[in-house]
Amino acid sequence: MDPTQRKTSDKIVNPLRHKIHEIIFEADTPAGKAFDIILLWLIGISVAVVMLESVPRINKEYQSLFTIIEWVVTILFTIEYCLRIYSVYRPFVYIFSFYGIVDLLSILPTFLSLFLPGTQYLVTIRALRLLRVFRILKLSNYTSQGNVLLSALRASRTKITVFMMAVMTIVVIMGSAMYLIEGTDPETKFTSIPISIYWAIVTLTTVGYGDISPTTELGQFLSSILMILGYAIIAVPTGIVSSEISKADVVEEEEINTTSCPSCSRYGHDSDATFCKYCGHSL
Amino acid sequence: MDPTQRKTSDKIVNPLRHKIHEIIFEADTPAGKAFDIILLWLIGISVAVVMLESVPRINKEYQSLFTIIEWVVTILFTIEYCLRIYSVYRPFVYIFSFYGIVDLLSILPTFLSLFLPGTQYLVTIRALRLLRVFRILKLSNYTSQGNVLLSALRASRTKITVFMMAVMTIVVIMGSAMYLIEGTDPETKFTSIPISIYWAIVTLTTVGYGDISPTTELGQFLSSILMILGYAIIAVPTGIVSSEISKADVVEEEEINTTSCPSCSRYGHDSDATFCKYCGHSL
Amino acid sequence: MDPTQRKTSDKIVNPLRHKIHEIIFEADTPAGKAFDIILLWLIGISVAVVMLESVPRINKEYQSLFTIIEWVVTILFTIEYCLRIYSVYRPFVYIFSFYGIVDLLSILPTFLSLFLPGTQYLVTIRALRLLRVFRILKLSNYTSQGNVLLSALRASRTKITVFMMAVMTIVVIMGSAMYLIEGTDPETKFTSIPISIYWAIVTLTTVGYGDISPTTELGQFLSSILMILGYAIIAVPTGIVSSEISKADVVEEEEINTTSCPSCSRYGHDSDATFCKYCGHSL
Amino acid sequence: MDPTQRKTSDKIVNPLRHKIHEIIFEADTPAGKAFDIILLWLIGISVAVVMLESVPRINKEYQSLFTIIEWVVTILFTIEYCLRIYSVYRPFVYIFSFYGIVDLLSILPTFLSLFLPGTQYLVTIRALRLLRVFRILKLSNYTSQGNVLLSALRASRTKITVFMMAVMTIVVIMGSAMYLIEGTDPETKFTSIPISIYWAIVTLTTVGYGDISPTTELGQFLSSILMILGYAIIAVPTGIVSSEISKADVVEEEEINTTSCPSCSRYGHDSDATFCKYCGHSL
Repeated sequence: MDPTQRKTSDKIVNPLRHKIHEIIFEADTPAGKAFDIILLWLIGISVAVVMLESVPRINKEYQSLFTIIEWVVTILFTIEYCLRIYSVYRPFVYIFSFYGIVDLLSILPTFLSLFLPGTQYLVTIRALRLLRVFRILKLSNYTSQGNVLLSALRASRTKITVFMMAVMTIVVIMGSAMYLIEGTDPETKFTSIPISIYWAIVTLTTVGYGDISPTTELGQFLSSILMILGYAIIAVPTGIVSSEISKADVVEEEEINTTSCPSCSRYGHDSDATFCKYCGHSL
Repeated sequence: MDPTQRKTSDKIVNPLRHKIHEIIFEADTPAGKAFDIILLWLIGISVAVVMLESVPRINKEYQSLFTIIEWVVTILFTIEYCLRIYSVYRPFVYIFSFYGIVDLLSILPTFLSLFLPGTQYLVTIRALRLLRVFRILKLSNYTSQGNVLLSALRASRTKITVFMMAVMTIVVIMGSAMYLIEGTDPETKFTSIPISIYWAIVTLTTVGYGDISPTTELGQFLSSILMILGYAIIAVPTGIVSSEISKADVVEEEEINTTSCPSCSRYGHDSDATFCKYCGHSL
Repeated sequence: MDPTQRKTSDKIVNPLRHKIHEIIFEADTPAGKAFDIILLWLIGISVAVVMLESVPRINKEYQSLFTIIEWVVTILFTIEYCLRIYSVYRPFVYIFSFYGIVDLLSILPTFLSLFLPGTQYLVTIRALRLLRVFRILKLSNYTSQGNVLLSALRASRTKITVFMMAVMTIVVIMGSAMYLIEGTDPETKFTSIPISIYWAIVTLTTVGYGDISPTTELGQFLSSILMILGYAIIAVPTGIVSSEISKADVVEEEEINTTSCPSCSRYGHDSDATFCKYCGHSL
Repeated sequence: MDPTQRKTSDKIVNPLRHKIHEIIFEADTPAGKAFDIILLWLIGISVAVVMLESVPRINKEYQSLFTIIEWVVTILFTIEYCLRIYSVYRPFVYIFSFYGIVDLLSILPTFLSLFLPGTQYLVTIRALRLLRVFRILKLSNYTSQGNVLLSALRASRTKITVFMMAVMTIVVIMGSAMYLIEGTDPETKFTSIPISIYWAIVTLTTVGYGDISPTTELGQFLSSILMILGYAIIAVPTGIVSSEISKADVVEEEEINTTSCPSCSRYGHDSDATFCKYCGHSL
């Protein structure tokens, strides 16, 4: 029995299960939409509570309130998670899907915090659940724009891999060189190669904390080269993605405006055209 | 009575009001242009005075001079604001327009400073009034170039929203992770999740103040990943805007060599069109 | 008498002056090329000497050597400057040209240093003279590539002006807001609005020294917004220049490959084509 | 005797040498692939060992283990290097090729460390050997994408040279100016022109360590200009590379749907060509 058949038969055989599925997984019915909006509010509140909980000054005052909210939200999410598994047609596909794993990870930390204090902060992973907002918006615009970005990134995947390997090699070699140059000074902060590689990454990406910075003349010369290199090669990923987005955009747009003239069969008409611009025939 | 009719009748009925409108709102007549240039100078002087007033060393010496200038300019701006409301044909449209609000906000702080000391610094919002300079320049070039930029940004609005949500999610999750990793050290500066999120933003945007920086090995490893991520994804908004500016430029250029249809007089034909795409008439 | 005529007549009347002009201003003859190469070496040595002179440790040891080199080079440059004025056909055009001013500025500081100590460091402006290297290279490639860059920047001039005004307005308003928020703390480093604007520029451009950084929660929140803004709008100038370089490149290339087919008169042949790709006629 | 002939004859005359070549230099046979995978693991382990060795805490505990691994790997690499020279058809071409030099440099430091302590850290240059991974992947995709990047960089070589010279000139002049402005303060960190140039590079590239930052008002004003300049001109290399990658991509794509001329068998025809552009034969 294939899923769509099962779905149809389920609708008759088990109307409750079907109803739950409709509310939880879809956002087309008023109930489904209301459910999703409540869900987003709960996620938002819960993430905010965890953030505030970590601020000692605020936590001191509202600790009990925060604990209550946290547990109420977690129990609601646990019920929701169980209902999702119950109502979905292929439970394992859901459980191992991106959203399934995120849903599980967003309830586990609270339970874990009973045994391991501190782990409750992991519930900020719930922030990922906010991505569900796109389902409510249901704006094909957002989805298609997101797809343009994703397909641009996917198309430049191999280029970015090649680029990242080059960056890694530069960083390892420059880090080691700096360790050799700066590491002899007993006051140095370049205490090991991994730390020096960390410094090289901080420099190449132009972040530049300044927690570690060269003090010898040769070290400053070498880091100047690294900076200019970083400044020049930041152009590469930008160039890659720019080029891909341009292409992805063109494809998207071209696919939208494809009416062919019934008389001369030529393409390329604007979406507001009512006559063929080549032969004058009405479109 | 529609506005244009009212305008014409007003010219006859109330010539003073019409004259004030011409001077204050338009920059085509010599009087109007002179008014706008004086206005810009006053804005510039006033912003400079507020800046200098905040420097203790300078303020000590010239305090009374600064107070006088500040009040003279504010009174002139108040008169101007009243005249604008008096002379404009639709006062409420002006009051709630962007410039109307800016005009009001640039006089309020000085009056407020009588009751709440410190608020006088808010008058730097007057800097926004400097945008009026574009009206004087009246260079269609500047306006059209500004439009290219604005339309490029508007066209990439949804892409940028999607991108910003991704950035926010990364920043919340990375900030929380860093709080867990670095927060156990009693000397740490990652004292709460909001502070850690602030750090994550400082890092991802490659600003890198260094007021907060990781000290544990795991923390340094995680922030290296965040930096490289920031370095890679800075490419995305750049790519988006590059691509849109290219397109906006093309559109702008295409519209420059347009021909209007001799039959329906509409614009917007492609340069390779031989028939009007709206009415089918040969071009 | 027009300049070219004068030049020809000069060649006969004043062969020495003509010879000097050929050596100093041109790089086609062996003597002219040798002169330019010696000149570049002198400039390089002189800039290096000034740099080293400023390092106390090195200066202590070699001070007299540095003074001698500096004066020898300056006297040579002074002679060269006089010869340039003597030999050039239109002295005032040269004196007020970019290179003429640079040439003068690169000898003045040494003489000035006799009266005002410290000014000798200004001779690093001689570094600008190194731009003469392009004349020796005489690689039309470099010149044309430089022109592509310059014309791209020139074409985006108005867009960049509009963008810069927007940046300035953001920076003034954000700086003032931060002064209001952070300035109340007696320990603050936001001691005045100009300093706060400096901080806003450091942040918006993602430089992030960390010499001044927000300490209040509201201040950190506001600077997070400023950073993300800076991260997003860095895309704008990049997009502008990318788009212009693409266009400038296309123009340059199109102008290079424009042989029309003698048979079908169509364009668009590659530079390595020997037959028309549309009709097969030999080009 | 040309190499391919020699290769064939070698296969018969010296089967062992031929077999070694196949295993070491090629990755098509199972033995060759296994060899390359083991090689990559050895490189990775070796680089990791050198990194960990530099961390005092870890080195204290595992020093003897690290020394053993290091020597085992070095001896294996030395054997491999000798075998490569023995089996390759043109030893000198290999020795002076990029990989040949890297292979030599990755064994030398360990031997050198017997005489000069500290030099063993130079073996991180082995990281360059990891680039061999591309040979295993044998994904023409990666190679062609890498070529797109390389050809984009090569095509923008002259533009980048011109740009870099401009950056250098800005940095030298700004550094000297800052030395003049800030250097008078006895507490200053702008102690010499080279240090000030280092600061100018740190600022222009938006790295911004904050180890050196301006303290005078004029210095802060000047560095604000430098930052905005850096912010604006970062657009230039990005624009250059973006534009080149777009073009390189187009070329690559066009070359994918090439047809070879039936008469002269040459490639590189445009997709709209109906006649061979080299010999005029119909395609």
